Amino acid sequence: MEKDFALIELFDIYGGLLTDRQRELFASYYLFDLSLKEIAEPEGKTRQNVYEQVKKVKAKLLEYESLLHVKTKNQAALSVADQLSAQGNPLGDKLKEILSR
Amino acid sequence: MEKDFALIELFDIYGGLLTDRQRELFASYYLFDLSLKEIAEPEGKTRQNVYEQVKKVKAKLLEYESLLHVKTKNQAALSVADQLSAQGNPLGDKLKEILSR
Repeated sequence: MEKDFALIELFDIYGGLLTDRQRELFASYYLFDLSLKEIAEPEGKTRQNVYEQVKKVKAKLLEYESLLHVKTKNQAALSVADQLSAQGNPLGDKLKEILSR
Repeated sequence: MEKDFALIELFDIYGGLLTDRQRELFASYYLFDLSLKEIAEPEGKTRQNVYEQVKKVKAKLLEYESLLHVKTKNQAALSVADQLSAQGNPLGDKLKEILSR
């Protein structure tokens, strides 16, 4: 499984809908960039088992985006923020700050 | 139960996370503004039963906002859009259009 770090943005948006375990797993694999083996061994689990769990978390995040489209909207708003910054309008930075909360 | 129509904004944002039945119920009560009795009777249910279901949907929407804060962020971004419109900047309308999608 190739690590898709674009998922981190979805995690920032929808992480609150995951369970503690799912969040912990996501953080280990994507934020701390551990391998499946590194996550599995200290927990006495198999690499395959952790792989299945990570896959499930990834599917959850993609499902939330397909239902709510918050990332897509954020990106469109961010493009407005970039245009404002290009105009030298300080509201561009203000908008970026809001979107990254 | 007083109808809190501010919930409609939460429904627009998080409705995708509800079940079909929950969405239908929300629409009947808040969008079409039916009474609990008007919803209950054709379904052969009690007013109390529908009341409990509506209360659950309302709690779900409030829970999603407490976890994800999308409405709060939208409102902050909308305030930026208002400031842009006051400046006569057409990106204000553009931003409002994105936020209302």
